[in-house]
Amino acid sequence: MEILNEIIAKVDAMKDDLIKQRRDIHRHPETGWTEFRTASLVAEKLSSYGYEVLVGEKAVKKDAMMGLPSDEALRNAQKRAVSEGANPDLVEKMTGGLTGVVGIFHFAKPGPVVALRCDMDCNDVTETSDEKHFPNQQGFSSTHEKEMHACGHDGHTTVGLAVAKILSEMKDELAGTFKIIFQPAEEGVRGAHAMAENGVVDDVDYLLGAHFGFKMKHTGDIACDVTGFLATTKFDAAFTGKPAHAGAAPEEGRNALLAAACAALNLHAIPRHSAGVSRINVGKLIAGSGRNVVGDKALIQLETRGSTTEINKFMEDEAARILNAAAAMYGVDVEIKKVGGAAGGSNSPELAAFLKDKAKEIGIFKNIVGECDFGASEDFSYFMEKVQSHGGQAAYMMVGAELAAGHHDSHFNFDETALAHSAKMMCYSLSQLLTSKK
Amino acid sequence: MEILNEIIAKVDAMKDDLIKQRRDIHRHPETGWTEFRTASLVAEKLSSYGYEVLVGEKAVKKDAMMGLPSDEALRNAQKRAVSEGANPDLVEKMTGGLTGVVGIFHFAKPGPVVALRCDMDCNDVTETSDEKHFPNQQGFSSTHEKEMHACGHDGHTTVGLAVAKILSEMKDELAGTFKIIFQPAEEGVRGAHAMAENGVVDDVDYLLGAHFGFKMKHTGDIACDVTGFLATTKFDAAFTGKPAHAGAAPEEGRNALLAAACAALNLHAIPRHSAGVSRINVGKLIAGSGRNVVGDKALIQLETRGSTTEINKFMEDEAARILNAAAAMYGVDVEIKKVGGAAGGSNSPELAAFLKDKAKEIGIFKNIVGECDFGASEDFSYFMEKVQSHGGQAAYMMVGAELAAGHHDSHFNFDETALAHSAKMMCYSLSQLLTSKK
Amino acid sequence: MEILNEIIAKVDAMKDDLIKQRRDIHRHPETGWTEFRTASLVAEKLSSYGYEVLVGEKAVKKDAMMGLPSDEALRNAQKRAVSEGANPDLVEKMTGGLTGVVGIFHFAKPGPVVALRCDMDCNDVTETSDEKHFPNQQGFSSTHEKEMHACGHDGHTTVGLAVAKILSEMKDELAGTFKIIFQPAEEGVRGAHAMAENGVVDDVDYLLGAHFGFKMKHTGDIACDVTGFLATTKFDAAFTGKPAHAGAAPEEGRNALLAAACAALNLHAIPRHSAGVSRINVGKLIAGSGRNVVGDKALIQLETRGSTTEINKFMEDEAARILNAAAAMYGVDVEIKKVGGAAGGSNSPELAAFLKDKAKEIGIFKNIVGECDFGASEDFSYFMEKVQSHGGQAAYMMVGAELAAGHHDSHFNFDETALAHSAKMMCYSLSQLLTSKK
Amino acid sequence: MEILNEIIAKVDAMKDDLIKQRRDIHRHPETGWTEFRTASLVAEKLSSYGYEVLVGEKAVKKDAMMGLPSDEALRNAQKRAVSEGANPDLVEKMTGGLTGVVGIFHFAKPGPVVALRCDMDCNDVTETSDEKHFPNQQGFSSTHEKEMHACGHDGHTTVGLAVAKILSEMKDELAGTFKIIFQPAEEGVRGAHAMAENGVVDDVDYLLGAHFGFKMKHTGDIACDVTGFLATTKFDAAFTGKPAHAGAAPEEGRNALLAAACAALNLHAIPRHSAGVSRINVGKLIAGSGRNVVGDKALIQLETRGSTTEINKFMEDEAARILNAAAAMYGVDVEIKKVGGAAGGSNSPELAAFLKDKAKEIGIFKNIVGECDFGASEDFSYFMEKVQSHGGQAAYMMVGAELAAGHHDSHFNFDETALAHSAKMMCYSLSQLLTSKK
Repeated sequence: MEILNEIIAKVDAMKDDLIKQRRDIHRHPETGWTEFRTASLVAEKLSSYGYEVLVGEKAVKKDAMMGLPSDEALRNAQKRAVSEGANPDLVEKMTGGLTGVVGIFHFAKPGPVVALRCDMDCNDVTETSDEKHFPNQQGFSSTHEKEMHACGHDGHTTVGLAVAKILSEMKDELAGTFKIIFQPAEEGVRGAHAMAENGVVDDVDYLLGAHFGFKMKHTGDIACDVTGFLATTKFDAAFTGKPAHAGAAPEEGRNALLAAACAALNLHAIPRHSAGVSRINVGKLIAGSGRNVVGDKALIQLETRGSTTEINKFMEDEAARILNAAAAMYGVDVEIKKVGGAAGGSNSPELAAFLKDKAKEIGIFKNIVGECDFGASEDFSYFMEKVQSHGGQAAYMMVGAELAAGHHDSHFNFDETALAHSAKMMCYSLSQLLTSKK
Repeated sequence: MEILNEIIAKVDAMKDDLIKQRRDIHRHPETGWTEFRTASLVAEKLSSYGYEVLVGEKAVKKDAMMGLPSDEALRNAQKRAVSEGANPDLVEKMTGGLTGVVGIFHFAKPGPVVALRCDMDCNDVTETSDEKHFPNQQGFSSTHEKEMHACGHDGHTTVGLAVAKILSEMKDELAGTFKIIFQPAEEGVRGAHAMAENGVVDDVDYLLGAHFGFKMKHTGDIACDVTGFLATTKFDAAFTGKPAHAGAAPEEGRNALLAAACAALNLHAIPRHSAGVSRINVGKLIAGSGRNVVGDKALIQLETRGSTTEINKFMEDEAARILNAAAAMYGVDVEIKKVGGAAGGSNSPELAAFLKDKAKEIGIFKNIVGECDFGASEDFSYFMEKVQSHGGQAAYMMVGAELAAGHHDSHFNFDETALAHSAKMMCYSLSQLLTSKK
Repeated sequence: MEILNEIIAKVDAMKDDLIKQRRDIHRHPETGWTEFRTASLVAEKLSSYGYEVLVGEKAVKKDAMMGLPSDEALRNAQKRAVSEGANPDLVEKMTGGLTGVVGIFHFAKPGPVVALRCDMDCNDVTETSDEKHFPNQQGFSSTHEKEMHACGHDGHTTVGLAVAKILSEMKDELAGTFKIIFQPAEEGVRGAHAMAENGVVDDVDYLLGAHFGFKMKHTGDIACDVTGFLATTKFDAAFTGKPAHAGAAPEEGRNALLAAACAALNLHAIPRHSAGVSRINVGKLIAGSGRNVVGDKALIQLETRGSTTEINKFMEDEAARILNAAAAMYGVDVEIKKVGGAAGGSNSPELAAFLKDKAKEIGIFKNIVGECDFGASEDFSYFMEKVQSHGGQAAYMMVGAELAAGHHDSHFNFDETALAHSAKMMCYSLSQLLTSKK
Repeated sequence: MEILNEIIAKVDAMKDDLIKQRRDIHRHPETGWTEFRTASLVAEKLSSYGYEVLVGEKAVKKDAMMGLPSDEALRNAQKRAVSEGANPDLVEKMTGGLTGVVGIFHFAKPGPVVALRCDMDCNDVTETSDEKHFPNQQGFSSTHEKEMHACGHDGHTTVGLAVAKILSEMKDELAGTFKIIFQPAEEGVRGAHAMAENGVVDDVDYLLGAHFGFKMKHTGDIACDVTGFLATTKFDAAFTGKPAHAGAAPEEGRNALLAAACAALNLHAIPRHSAGVSRINVGKLIAGSGRNVVGDKALIQLETRGSTTEINKFMEDEAARILNAAAAMYGVDVEIKKVGGAAGGSNSPELAAFLKDKAKEIGIFKNIVGECDFGASEDFSYFMEKVQSHGGQAAYMMVGAELAAGHHDSHFNFDETALAHSAKMMCYSLSQLLTSKK
């Protein structure tokens, strides 16, 4: 119990720093693939703690990146990051949106490779100007229009940095290797894939991750046995036909609007899957140019989901066939682009049980819930799948935090006392995995 | 006017024979491609009038036949024809449904090739047992269940034979060549194509054809300037998917029923054509095996039309693409079969004007109408198109006849006095075309 | 254990009778609502054992019957039943398909109301003429074309009669009331509803039912804890439009074919339900009269399912709205008829555990499996839902039996030694429920 | 011929004024219902010529106006008009977009009521900045962004004012009443309806109208016998459903996106009409908010057409039913708004023949074409229909003019020498109708 007491003392000592750090990140939110300031900050801190640090193409596989912003948006975000204090050399290395960071710490004694994954990106939301909104009262609300940390990733990054510092300070008591992964673009489930494909968890024996709030809405709650990650794939399909005057020569048109409408209907008729949960949604359809013109352009945005990667693959294959057939149906072209995705999965049961025990031992959690069905998608699952597929164990926790409003809402905020809860839980669990035995 | 008087006298002299002949054919109706008895009768009579007679593969191009009955149905019809008095040798030559007959008469003096086309098949209709129905009163109603001359082709064949006889008797007064074409399977517009493809009108300078009734519902009326034949194509599309239990494993099915439904909807959404009339109809859709099984089989029967052959071609091409795309949409197979078709077109104006003049000269028509829009499909148009395309002239007439009920109705009957009208009009017009001058 | 030994002895003594009885019923299969001979036989036997017997409207609620055959078919089946030895008075009472039978036995000592449900109908299947087929070898195959016991209900009825006899013979050892329910029309899940609505299980404390085979394919296996009955509803929807010539006046038609196609596609696009399994299937679509006629008639057969009655209700409501909207879309009428249905549900856990214990005690089962997911629909669930909803307990068992081919297959047959297994299990379990204590 | 010579002289004398006037209007284009400057100019000039002038609600029926801009847009346009020299009192009277103007001139001698209709609005097009564009070379191109006279209405208004002036000067030679109608919002066929409904042509015996260019692309050509105006109706349909998370609770959504898609497909499947040309086009479909949200909002913009008002009415009724049914199909609401429309029709043959004669007499037209099929929609047809329905005659002419680019193109310009052609034709034709005899 010596280690536990040491960790609790260390975290309690840095409580104010945690809040300060979180608020700094909150004021400078950056959306997926543009986390140049955040990632630079992370990289510099990790270096200062003695970590080997991977950035740029060492952290992210370029051609596996999904849902990238335009080159112009990326360049503007780089400039802004530098103007807001980011290290220009690091920002330069991240050109093209390569904003993932990996920190590695080799302890002297041999032991397992244990990893923690954090996410850094914000949402496409403009933070409320409501005076009662806590970040407004305390003066740390977003300084970027249409960008806001409305999902708590500012907290995740903050906790990650604290854990990295504490474990580095405890290096004589630990064994094996600690890897800390800061990923970009979790929103839209776009970022994990490109880091996982770069092999960053290929040698990992134990992987942890966590989210504030979600189904744990009370500070002091924790869920260690999370199941039911839905695998998901995000597509954009752009149909291109031929315009024609709808009165004078309708037969000369190639109707992309109807192709998209036809696709939408038939996509929703993909059969249910008997092996588990499946989902399909065409969430956006923008088509046509004018009332009296045969619609020559159409864009649809859709997503598939499945309670297993296989079911999602079934949905994805059906969707692709249907999109192509809908184009053929109206004699138009279609370009289908995969713009995001996550694997399905569930926590490794043994690791989940281990975490529950640790949570009890810490003694700060009022309510340690049992199995918790996630029922949604998080691209942590890409890392989880990789680790589990080579025989490792992975687990995702939900750390309870009182919320001011739902996730992705412009009034979102979380109870900052949860920062210390999460830091303690992570440090203690990781320390108990970073041993030569077990 | 000598010739006209001669013709009138000849027709008037055979009035009773006309009625007798028509009633014999009416009693023994034969549907498309099974006109073994009728065609044998025609072939024998033409031979006896001195015509060179082409039957079997000399009259009909085998691989251009559309919408054939089953081999069994054909064989049964052959047996029945023989049992009803047909010449077994001729019936044998027509094996496989080759029931077209061409009669050729070369006159001594040189002159144009002039043709008359008649159709011989009946409808898939069971004649009414209503006692007031004229054929029942006179005892000449159909002896075949589900077969009835409900469109007057018994009359057309009768008139054709009379015209053939009279013109052969007038051989010293005529010049050039007379061809008389008796085609099978006009219903479903299936038969003309296979004779036209065999070249039977390739040398024809003038082609005539006629129909009783239709838009001319009063005996004594005649229309010589018929326009607006709708080109048409008939398709069957059979979709084959894979059955699966709809409760236990819906994802294992390949849904042919939905593919057919999807095809039907999108076929009807083929754009209108600015160059003229277009039509599409899916008239039948039969799909699925059981309520709780993913529908693995589906059949649809459809047709396209167009006021020109080009418009119909547009519709046909669109339909084919849509049928294939609907199959792709549901991952099923589709087999598309063309089962019928007719060209579009209009009477040659010069020949129409000539016929109007002849109709006036005969003096038996009370009402010679002007342009008459056909607005439907008749496979006479296949012959017409061929003749017109090589510089010849073609015209289709409607010969007025009081009707007991509409065409294809089980109560259909036409005023038999129209038989003589038509025979006179045909003989006189043809005689005026079969001259060395003109 | 005295009772158990007594039961085993009694059943063993009647083994040959069980087989004889089963084969008699097998030779005279009757489809849903036409079980006149079977039901008469059952009613007579129950009477002879001293049961109070309810037939006709006392057993079945007339206006709750779903999926009835035509009046003619019912009358013909009545005549046949009498010709095959059925009691004419009983058959008369069942006129209109009222073929349900309830037997009631009041024991002297007070106690619970305990019920057993059996089903009597056969399938719409013609039994194979394969010489190797056991019923052919033994000369007891179906004497009715297109009717065959291909789901083992002949066995269920046989076991039911044996249980009724044995329990009546043990009347001095038992307490409370025994009710035995013989239902018609289980196939298509049509019959239970009309008996449940008549209140036949309103006073039941414990309800048992069973099926041979299904997921228990080895004689000697048994499943007592069956869960996951899918609630289901079966609909027929008949669309009526207006025919019109597709070439001459398409705008005058009202297209029932397209309404049905439109309904089919949109039915399959009913959203998935997050609370559990949902299903939709349009398994049949028959529409249109001729290729060139706007389709004025269409029939579709569909079913919805849900892992709970609520989810199925959601599907059912959506389906009804969509069918009506599809009719409105094409300006046609639609008549929607519910032709079958079953509730969702699972065995009462306490009763399931009790049955497992009894199965062990009997000592004849080699393999007593744990939870068994039914994953399909059986209208036993209607009775189960009623009993559970008023605080009673219900359980459905699967009794292992080697099968010659799958259920509903023309080669289906089951190992007749399973008859005794089931009779023993039923008698013993029921006897242990029919006590004054517990 | 005295009158003709007088007219020719008068027009020739004002040639420069015509061009100056046209260019002033061209520089200040105003889109539909915002023609405050143009209408004020017209009203002032008509007053100065001695006309009785109707503006505001005397000219336009408020609740029959279709496709109005927002209140803000109208107010801004009013301010701009005043800032560009419009009479503030007149602009005030036109508040709300009441920009129609009617001028009435009663001649001393009794005679028929003869009217001329002109249109004043411009297109939603930004005029090209191409230096070679004639209006740029001559310095009279549009000073308003996104507004341009790209359809020649600047010329129509100019000619109308010239005709009004000349006929007023010839008052002693004419009889009856002359009415000149300047309508707003011809683009989108929105304006005529609201003036026709106000009764402005209820007393008109002869109505003329004209367009530069269109099918007459050579200066010196003229078409007097225009037929085949397509009746048309423009709809907006807004669907409102309920959003829901597509992964977590799809069944809670009400899918407006699919309702709109379903509407689009089924609208295009409205049957063709045998009585003439029909058209349907869904030209725009905008739906949904995010990829992972059930689409709760959708907007579609559509139009129907027909070669007669009856056919268009059929299309319109079908469309309305389908839109409502599509909403019902997905349990969403729909609001349907008619935003434009025009009647079908053809020139009165007698008046067309009269105009041809007058065109010949003038002697300035090189090519007077025969029947000219319009094949599109113009809301002149609303006035035409009203006049013809009470027994009057109406005709629309196309006055040839060399064009720099097609109508509605940013490079559009027409040969200004056509202004005089049109003025002469109008003045002479109107003068020959404004007589006591005829």
